[in-house]
Amino acid sequence: MSTTGRPDSWAITSPRSDRVKRIAALSGRSARRRHGRFRVEGPQAVRSLLQHRAQAVRELYVTFDGADAAPEILDLAETSGITAREVSSEILRAMTRGEDPADGMASPQGVLAVADIAQRSLTDVLTGLPSGPATVLVLHEVQDPGNVGTLIRAADASGADAVLATTGTADFHAPKVVRSATGSLFHLPVVTGIAPEALFSELRDAGVSVLATSGYAESDLYAAKLPSRSAWVMGNEARGLPESVLADADLAVRIPLAGDAESLNVAIAATVCLFETLRRR
Amino acid sequence: MSTTGRPDSWAITSPRSDRVKRIAALSGRSARRRHGRFRVEGPQAVRSLLQHRAQAVRELYVTFDGADAAPEILDLAETSGITAREVSSEILRAMTRGEDPADGMASPQGVLAVADIAQRSLTDVLTGLPSGPATVLVLHEVQDPGNVGTLIRAADASGADAVLATTGTADFHAPKVVRSATGSLFHLPVVTGIAPEALFSELRDAGVSVLATSGYAESDLYAAKLPSRSAWVMGNEARGLPESVLADADLAVRIPLAGDAESLNVAIAATVCLFETLRRR
Repeated sequence: MSTTGRPDSWAITSPRSDRVKRIAALSGRSARRRHGRFRVEGPQAVRSLLQHRAQAVRELYVTFDGADAAPEILDLAETSGITAREVSSEILRAMTRGEDPADGMASPQGVLAVADIAQRSLTDVLTGLPSGPATVLVLHEVQDPGNVGTLIRAADASGADAVLATTGTADFHAPKVVRSATGSLFHLPVVTGIAPEALFSELRDAGVSVLATSGYAESDLYAAKLPSRSAWVMGNEARGLPESVLADADLAVRIPLAGDAESLNVAIAATVCLFETLRRR
Repeated sequence: MSTTGRPDSWAITSPRSDRVKRIAALSGRSARRRHGRFRVEGPQAVRSLLQHRAQAVRELYVTFDGADAAPEILDLAETSGITAREVSSEILRAMTRGEDPADGMASPQGVLAVADIAQRSLTDVLTGLPSGPATVLVLHEVQDPGNVGTLIRAADASGADAVLATTGTADFHAPKVVRSATGSLFHLPVVTGIAPEALFSELRDAGVSVLATSGYAESDLYAAKLPSRSAWVMGNEARGLPESVLADADLAVRIPLAGDAESLNVAIAATVCLFETLRRR
């Protein structure tokens, strides 16, 4: 850090430099896997990363305007001994190149970090659950990155203790997931790429009941007795949960639909279940 | 309709025809206003349109595969005396041209309709509310079309009686809103473009209390007494509700946040409030 508190401006001046290209490549899943790193964009997500997972931060870039608008980012970085580098907004935009334009990417708003993907094991996370009441969210083949990010954010807000994802779910470290989760990805333990077959028995071994939702379930969510340690399993946007998952769940409940809607968006369904769990505590 | 039940194939063969261009232009708000029409895409939304607002349908297009995959669309159209026209998938895609690519447009999945925008007056919709308990959702400057569609869908599912929007809110008839709402736009009355100043007094005149959410409110949602006739007001994604709206509301409640999340996505916040209202009924 310079003595003025402004970021180090050790210059990255070309949007075609190797460093910029390497960071832009993290838009893709294969590059994220190869390097074990991902990109975090925007002041809210980066602030949360610095507060909760500072040890994972490898690189931090800010524009002059970004540093001005979010001075706490530089303070947090300094506290953790992380050097922020000042770059132009052109460079910062080039670092997010390669994203699917359908992502509707906004600008990184002057702040961008590269961090290690900290993959914890399922056993480790289940062992670390609180010994009393516990709530877990399981995503099974949820494919829209915006939905996945919103689901992580809703799980965090409702006080869930972990978010787990089976192999067919959108990558939690994809840029759009990270953005939609607005920091919540760093607030609670996550495990991704879990083989669905073994998951339910591991949950039960940890004393956690498996709960599913279905429009055809007999129990109404608001009338059902919910186990104090439970995992809500949410399925694919179009197909919902497969019959095999529904049959294997300890309890399936129906979210009452009062209007003419045929179904609920997966993030809305999860929110109703997670906040009903929170309300009962 | 042909006697075989297959759609009329009165040919539209050029993606550059005036008809295709006119339908593609409905991606833009100004063309929608000028023509008083909008586009509905995909089997779920078109089915719901035909079931609930058939009289508004002006044109209906299906591909061969679309007709095969959703035969009920042709039956519904026939029942209402609407002629479906068969077009190629190239033509159907051309009809959705002009959309912002950031919309993440999927294909219209073989089915597309053009319908009249049926704008009802606020007074008309408020007069038509049930005389007993009633729930209204008000969107104030909610700007993301995907959020607006999800909000309309959540309102429908929770049994809300109307959705209202102030002038600064994303157009309910924009293609991405219509898609995200997956038919719910046709299930309940909507009024858009309302001047915010007069709205609250009109609601109160109809015996509907104005409820707002705020992270700083004293009342907890789950502990608060909620009026039986109420309008939940939800604000802009980044700025939330302005102070003036909070001050003018009859009741402001705090949604309890149990984790480290700083805030809730607007669709998540609305879902928690609307389903808590439903649960209490």
